Amino acid sequence: MPGNTFGHSFRITTAGESHGYGNLVIIDGLPAGIPLEVDDFLCDLKRRRPGQSSITTQRHEEDIPQLLTGIFEGKTTGSSLAIFIENKDVRSFDYKDIKHKYRPGHADFTFDTKYGIRDYRGGGRSSARETVVRVAAGTVAKKVLHYYGYKIKITGFTKQIGSIIAHIPNPAKISTVDIEQNIVRCPDTNAAGKMIELINQARSERDSIGGIAEFCASGVPPGWGEPVFDKLKADLGKAMFSLPAVTGVEFGAGFAVAARRGSQNNDVFIQKGKKIITETNNHGGILGGISSGMPIIIRCALKPTSSIPQEQQTVTTKGKQTTISTKGRHDPCLVPRFVPIGEAMIAVVLADHCIRQHVQMKKK
Amino acid sequence: MPGNTFGHSFRITTAGESHGYGNLVIIDGLPAGIPLEVDDFLCDLKRRRPGQSSITTQRHEEDIPQLLTGIFEGKTTGSSLAIFIENKDVRSFDYKDIKHKYRPGHADFTFDTKYGIRDYRGGGRSSARETVVRVAAGTVAKKVLHYYGYKIKITGFTKQIGSIIAHIPNPAKISTVDIEQNIVRCPDTNAAGKMIELINQARSERDSIGGIAEFCASGVPPGWGEPVFDKLKADLGKAMFSLPAVTGVEFGAGFAVAARRGSQNNDVFIQKGKKIITETNNHGGILGGISSGMPIIIRCALKPTSSIPQEQQTVTTKGKQTTISTKGRHDPCLVPRFVPIGEAMIAVVLADHCIRQHVQMKKK
Amino acid sequence: MPGNTFGHSFRITTAGESHGYGNLVIIDGLPAGIPLEVDDFLCDLKRRRPGQSSITTQRHEEDIPQLLTGIFEGKTTGSSLAIFIENKDVRSFDYKDIKHKYRPGHADFTFDTKYGIRDYRGGGRSSARETVVRVAAGTVAKKVLHYYGYKIKITGFTKQIGSIIAHIPNPAKISTVDIEQNIVRCPDTNAAGKMIELINQARSERDSIGGIAEFCASGVPPGWGEPVFDKLKADLGKAMFSLPAVTGVEFGAGFAVAARRGSQNNDVFIQKGKKIITETNNHGGILGGISSGMPIIIRCALKPTSSIPQEQQTVTTKGKQTTISTKGRHDPCLVPRFVPIGEAMIAVVLADHCIRQHVQMKKK
Amino acid sequence: MPGNTFGHSFRITTAGESHGYGNLVIIDGLPAGIPLEVDDFLCDLKRRRPGQSSITTQRHEEDIPQLLTGIFEGKTTGSSLAIFIENKDVRSFDYKDIKHKYRPGHADFTFDTKYGIRDYRGGGRSSARETVVRVAAGTVAKKVLHYYGYKIKITGFTKQIGSIIAHIPNPAKISTVDIEQNIVRCPDTNAAGKMIELINQARSERDSIGGIAEFCASGVPPGWGEPVFDKLKADLGKAMFSLPAVTGVEFGAGFAVAARRGSQNNDVFIQKGKKIITETNNHGGILGGISSGMPIIIRCALKPTSSIPQEQQTVTTKGKQTTISTKGRHDPCLVPRFVPIGEAMIAVVLADHCIRQHVQMKKK
Repeated sequence: MPGNTFGHSFRITTAGESHGYGNLVIIDGLPAGIPLEVDDFLCDLKRRRPGQSSITTQRHEEDIPQLLTGIFEGKTTGSSLAIFIENKDVRSFDYKDIKHKYRPGHADFTFDTKYGIRDYRGGGRSSARETVVRVAAGTVAKKVLHYYGYKIKITGFTKQIGSIIAHIPNPAKISTVDIEQNIVRCPDTNAAGKMIELINQARSERDSIGGIAEFCASGVPPGWGEPVFDKLKADLGKAMFSLPAVTGVEFGAGFAVAARRGSQNNDVFIQKGKKIITETNNHGGILGGISSGMPIIIRCALKPTSSIPQEQQTVTTKGKQTTISTKGRHDPCLVPRFVPIGEAMIAVVLADHCIRQHVQMKKK
Repeated sequence: MPGNTFGHSFRITTAGESHGYGNLVIIDGLPAGIPLEVDDFLCDLKRRRPGQSSITTQRHEEDIPQLLTGIFEGKTTGSSLAIFIENKDVRSFDYKDIKHKYRPGHADFTFDTKYGIRDYRGGGRSSARETVVRVAAGTVAKKVLHYYGYKIKITGFTKQIGSIIAHIPNPAKISTVDIEQNIVRCPDTNAAGKMIELINQARSERDSIGGIAEFCASGVPPGWGEPVFDKLKADLGKAMFSLPAVTGVEFGAGFAVAARRGSQNNDVFIQKGKKIITETNNHGGILGGISSGMPIIIRCALKPTSSIPQEQQTVTTKGKQTTISTKGRHDPCLVPRFVPIGEAMIAVVLADHCIRQHVQMKKK
Repeated sequence: MPGNTFGHSFRITTAGESHGYGNLVIIDGLPAGIPLEVDDFLCDLKRRRPGQSSITTQRHEEDIPQLLTGIFEGKTTGSSLAIFIENKDVRSFDYKDIKHKYRPGHADFTFDTKYGIRDYRGGGRSSARETVVRVAAGTVAKKVLHYYGYKIKITGFTKQIGSIIAHIPNPAKISTVDIEQNIVRCPDTNAAGKMIELINQARSERDSIGGIAEFCASGVPPGWGEPVFDKLKADLGKAMFSLPAVTGVEFGAGFAVAARRGSQNNDVFIQKGKKIITETNNHGGILGGISSGMPIIIRCALKPTSSIPQEQQTVTTKGKQTTISTKGRHDPCLVPRFVPIGEAMIAVVLADHCIRQHVQMKKK
Repeated sequence: MPGNTFGHSFRITTAGESHGYGNLVIIDGLPAGIPLEVDDFLCDLKRRRPGQSSITTQRHEEDIPQLLTGIFEGKTTGSSLAIFIENKDVRSFDYKDIKHKYRPGHADFTFDTKYGIRDYRGGGRSSARETVVRVAAGTVAKKVLHYYGYKIKITGFTKQIGSIIAHIPNPAKISTVDIEQNIVRCPDTNAAGKMIELINQARSERDSIGGIAEFCASGVPPGWGEPVFDKLKADLGKAMFSLPAVTGVEFGAGFAVAARRGSQNNDVFIQKGKKIITETNNHGGILGGISSGMPIIIRCALKPTSSIPQEQQTVTTKGKQTTISTKGRHDPCLVPRFVPIGEAMIAVVLADHCIRQHVQMKKK
């Protein structure tokens, strides 16, 4: 059944596997006349790229997108835009031994049960490799937001690794430069150092470690999102949970609301200049499913990488007990490379709702 | 822009406001031949009903659904099924004073900004009143699961209120009877007593309190969910975040994964009888976006009710500073009545993916 | 599987049967602030109404719509709008004898085969009764077009009954007054008289007769429609073929193009004032799937009513040979009442594409 | 706005232009385990290929599809399948002079008005070149029908060119061999000769000519199609009207019903063996929007090619009067190459409804 399309008015459809020819996205719903060239994609793709630092997988991919359709003389034509990103560093021998075993924490077993067939090379469609074209789509989405005249800043960073928690009092003030100053993408330099140490330790113990990424989208005007099923938090929540390894998503105060009183948690409305804003931002920028104009705050929990070099118990595809140690090239911690991926999906959702809200503004 | 439809193959479309004539759902994609009558709905609707106990709003609604279409001689016909639930206890005078003020934590401001017009009577479309037809849709969804031969049990309960946390070691063993034994819907009787006390205390202080609901869907076979955007966790996540007041959603170990190692968090596959299962369930029943056959575990954080009787700072619709105290009839804590609503949305998502996976099974 | 929803940005979802409680439409994607009241619907619904003249079915329905949701103080709120139209004149005894027989030309056999169950009362969901809410949706669609500032005139008329063909050289000049001047809805008075005669003759012979309706939508600006699958002619074609009894649809020169040369059929572009138009309109207002600004011309062939009082051969639901004579209340010719129904569906498609094109116009 | 996706359960999304890198389709909703290789596509693509005979365009394209994703070890994996077909014979100089003029009958003017930008090289997205990937999708769709165990034969042929009408009393008996025996794809050999002559004559007069293609899908079981908006005839109608140059579509008796009585047009049900069939097939295989088990008969009118070498009046993009003679490589008659394209779209619709009906058949 179809499940490879996302979005209503800005719509992306993807295809591709970890160890096939590459990955592909068709973007539909793009206004005409937006300048777009290969260079526009490189910064975001580079931030996602494998092999970017000592704490990521050593798979090496150039990730140069090919703009196959939908562009004419450097501008979008309004037609569907197809972007292809080749898989270059494909070493299938790494994965051969997992053909007959189910890796713990992976989709091998569920894919086999669902389809009765499985592309075992690097996880096939279940690999995080598919996110490469989501990042490309995110670049396009940001162009759309800019095209409609909005100055929206979407920044993610590593909030927590293990029990090391970054102290970032105002995420709306963090810039990409702040984030990119270290390989763990944590603007709290002190915490960053400890995080890197912890990741290295986990890796040296042939293990992996989990964490939390935090995102902030500032500059989103009030009024985006649809009130019932397509609430902005619902579409953002789906976008985030559609990413591999995400086990939790929260907005604003998130799970902390459980211990709060309404009188504490309610954000008081005040007037600031000509704008109505809230004094605090426990609500995380969305009220009733609709953006309030305050920064949108999202946190995602990411499980520790399932692929670990140490030996684990498991079963063969026939159900026989065995052990496995995953020898492929994997990130010991998923959070640093998740940051640009999460940012991209937020951009995709915002571009969709930007277009959706645009029709509310009448006039020929 | 459309935003009132949910689902691909089992699809619900809703309409309705808090203080209009009532609420309505059209269910499309229903197989023919499923027995269905008004009585089937009463149990679920009664559990959601306002005025059910001393710790809920005292609005009184009978909530008897009218099956307007799609039924013939007591069975579904395969046509779209429309269910209407009237609003009976509508006291508009309660809400009149909020016409010109923005209630903190509510959608008044965002609706005004989005639409330039607002049905201020009880929150209009932003009211949780709209969930009444979601619960009705959930009843139908459970019938669909049963029609396809699955014995799936979906149970929710109150996991946390304030800092009182229920101890429920195995949610898959909890029955509806266990849940319904107290008004706070917490099967840990000891915790339940403290929770009720805490809610009553919050109310007596003219305040409200937040909490967490936990859900378990057991009996879901492996193989449901689509690998990329329509992952089972993505669709469930969207479903939950589409509900009012939900600020966080997590699956399995959820946010706790942040502090874990892969070796701890990975669930080992074992064979049990003829089935392959996992020894533990940190993954919460979904791997790679596809059900694993293990119980699906979801937790939702609910903010404290925004409407509180105590006076709060806010602004008028013109931006002038003022105060407001919300006098309507409100739940001091949203979690107990959220339980049946969350269960319903889980059923709706599962029915959709049950049908979607059904096509994978070939043969004329 | 879902099949009761139509449209992308202006979206209608319907439910209802011929002899159930009534019919229902939920309209989603409606901008807020459009004035709307029951009176707005009456003119269109009256034109569709059964029992309106001597050449239609004598079933009597008031068809007063109930606006259940989505309206506040006389204006649309931006929420989903639900409209219910009751079935009042339901005489089930008329249909009882068809429970065990398949009426030739009807959906009895195909419904039974598809669903294994059939609401035999008046055709259930397959009855043209379901179009009553399409006409109501058409009224709302026309309001949307007006809201966006377009003056679009959509008029249909009876072009042909049997071999009587109306001579209407310029359909864009025909007004509703012209059309409504006779009960067959043919503005060519001379032809109209002969058509009425022919219909009466068919009825007196306990038979029915087919015909063609022609529609013209003028005032549609150039630029509406999407280039590939959602071409304006594709969506209009689907809309028309989704109506009961339609066996053919053509645009502009239609089937006549088969016998033409390109040099004859191509419409030459010329400038008229500041506009670029075509000198002739063989293309029927759509080029490359996109409106050209010229009047959109659509013709629909309608088969003779399948229900006829004279005895016909058929089989029972068990396959046994038998005869049937349909005794219900039926139109001897479907075209006159089809006119307002076709107009409504054109309005629904145009409202959708109006909104879709609106996003192309940038600016905050 | 999105408009490049078609289908509900078997869904295709396309991208590509006439003179860009190539054309692309992502097919979503494909069951896993269907054998598929490049060779499977060649026959259908060859039948569509430009340059195939003396009466088609002399553009030369190999049209070898690249299966980029969704295949593993020669079988579909259940993931989205991407197919890319390169444009090789691209001579942009042919089109340069149309940059500033609007070709009569083409989408140049409407694209410019819609988007404010136009890929003028060979019509860009509006070129019939985009149908190449529809034909590839049709090949996959036929595999799906076969996978579910259906033996469905979809055959199209040239029914009419100019005023030459082929006499094919039973289209269900026509085979692909019959169709392919001459370059005009007309199984009535006598008519075929005259048609070829007529096309050659039109071309020698620097003109083009229209025609009608007829299609027959036999072996479709009763029960496919959804009763209201997604009637089988509605989805087939949309599919056909989504193809370039189609100005009319009719099913079964089509426009001829206008002159008929119900008693003539109704198809009598009879029992044949264990099946219930109709004695005649005026209804063209669809009743109430649902397949009846009888052959589905569709006819499409195709306008004469808009691009003709002879000089025509038109305007520049600034509205100034001028003349144009289209010098590109064009078919003088579109019908012969339309045959495999129409067949493909029918296959796509049937695969979608095959899957959709499949869910009606319950059981784990």
